Amino acid sequence: MQDTLKILKIGGKLLAEKDQLEQVLRHFIQLEDPKILVHGGGKKATEVLRQMEIPPKMVNGRRITDAPTLEVVVMIYAGLVNKQMVSLMQSLGGNAFGMSGADGNLIQAHKRTVNKIDYGFAGDIDQVNVRLIKNILQLDLIPVFCAITHDQKGQLLNTNADTIAATLATALANDFLVELIYCFEKNGVLENPEDDTSVIPILDHQAFQKGIINGQIFEGMIPKLDNAFGALKQGVNKVLVCGVESWLAGGGTVLS
Amino acid sequence: MQDTLKILKIGGKLLAEKDQLEQVLRHFIQLEDPKILVHGGGKKATEVLRQMEIPPKMVNGRRITDAPTLEVVVMIYAGLVNKQMVSLMQSLGGNAFGMSGADGNLIQAHKRTVNKIDYGFAGDIDQVNVRLIKNILQLDLIPVFCAITHDQKGQLLNTNADTIAATLATALANDFLVELIYCFEKNGVLENPEDDTSVIPILDHQAFQKGIINGQIFEGMIPKLDNAFGALKQGVNKVLVCGVESWLAGGGTVLS
Repeated sequence: MQDTLKILKIGGKLLAEKDQLEQVLRHFIQLEDPKILVHGGGKKATEVLRQMEIPPKMVNGRRITDAPTLEVVVMIYAGLVNKQMVSLMQSLGGNAFGMSGADGNLIQAHKRTVNKIDYGFAGDIDQVNVRLIKNILQLDLIPVFCAITHDQKGQLLNTNADTIAATLATALANDFLVELIYCFEKNGVLENPEDDTSVIPILDHQAFQKGIINGQIFEGMIPKLDNAFGALKQGVNKVLVCGVESWLAGGGTVLS
Repeated sequence: MQDTLKILKIGGKLLAEKDQLEQVLRHFIQLEDPKILVHGGGKKATEVLRQMEIPPKMVNGRRITDAPTLEVVVMIYAGLVNKQMVSLMQSLGGNAFGMSGADGNLIQAHKRTVNKIDYGFAGDIDQVNVRLIKNILQLDLIPVFCAITHDQKGQLLNTNADTIAATLATALANDFLVELIYCFEKNGVLENPEDDTSVIPILDHQAFQKGIINGQIFEGMIPKLDNAFGALKQGVNKVLVCGVESWLAGGGTVLS
């Protein structure tokens, strides 16, 4: 009988809402199973980039991680947000331990290949150090991952936090019954994007594709759900997309 | 027979000199004993504070860690410098793992008591989680500590890196033969502060006090050596003050 491992990804506006953040972390810490937290950077990176007068570099509407931007996201994700999260969790009684993919070579990536677009220092993941993560979990610590990886040649890289969560989930699916939880500002995947009570309780891949076509599922939800369905296909036991409120009430959208 | 543990503190101008930094890290990584690295923040924090137009808050010529300054030092020490160091060490074959005092409650501190001066978010250390550090060392990882602690009530704190190195050394002296190495821009404690070849090979506490009186030892060297002598008194086996060149040549100043 395998242990259950819960991997919680939190991000978006949640990181800036202190009360909500505390609520979700409190609930997470009280779960008895081994667990991992993955967080994004919220809006703090954008704020600091502006304060430092680093002009956003955009290609086709997408932000490119150039060298000055990479420095700032490392500062914010691995530094400020990660340590604030760890410190908050410690104060709530959770034995959190912050980490990036560079630490212990936990997540090795490579700089995204330049095809038509040079995404700069964006990292695509090659491998996860499963043995070390298991060792860390055995110490009764809660790993808190920020969205920074490296190439083991001395280059730090910026990797999407949803992708990190899904990749960790997949990599650990041989050793645990993994439950992947995406907690964000909506209560789940919505039937009507305007109505936060219209949560779709169970979403299969066909309905997901239909949702994209009819415009119910759009923008950031598409890659998020793509990642999530990918994880499900690769052995992750359960994927839940939810908000703080719906998670605490046992709701949200379960992918199937 | 106890294992030897080497604790290396690097800081000052060294952090900004890529070649020298690589040289010292390469040497450090090749040491066979278990080892811990402690780093300061170099000048990067000052640079970013200026870029973000956060005015320095000074009292009696000393910089005070107010709330905006704390945010920046956490970003720089725990984020940028720590992860760059880890990534560089990984590229050199060292299994580095970055951490702050908040992670796993490794170093618990309290906000410095306000007497005449309010130092802001400066942390004075209360306790070190020795058991967890030993567990981490047993995983053949090299802990890389930045100079950030916390109070376990959700507050991050700024603690001097020399003090962190000395406190870790002292806390681990029951379990290891600890060798504490302060590596900085000078080759050791100098007979003549102007002459980097005038390294005093052995310095005892009496000579240290004499050096303060006659002006040989001054400014930042005084608290650094104070910390170091304190560690020696509390069971640390050996303290060496050196530069990259003198350390690699087996030189520097040994405290006795």
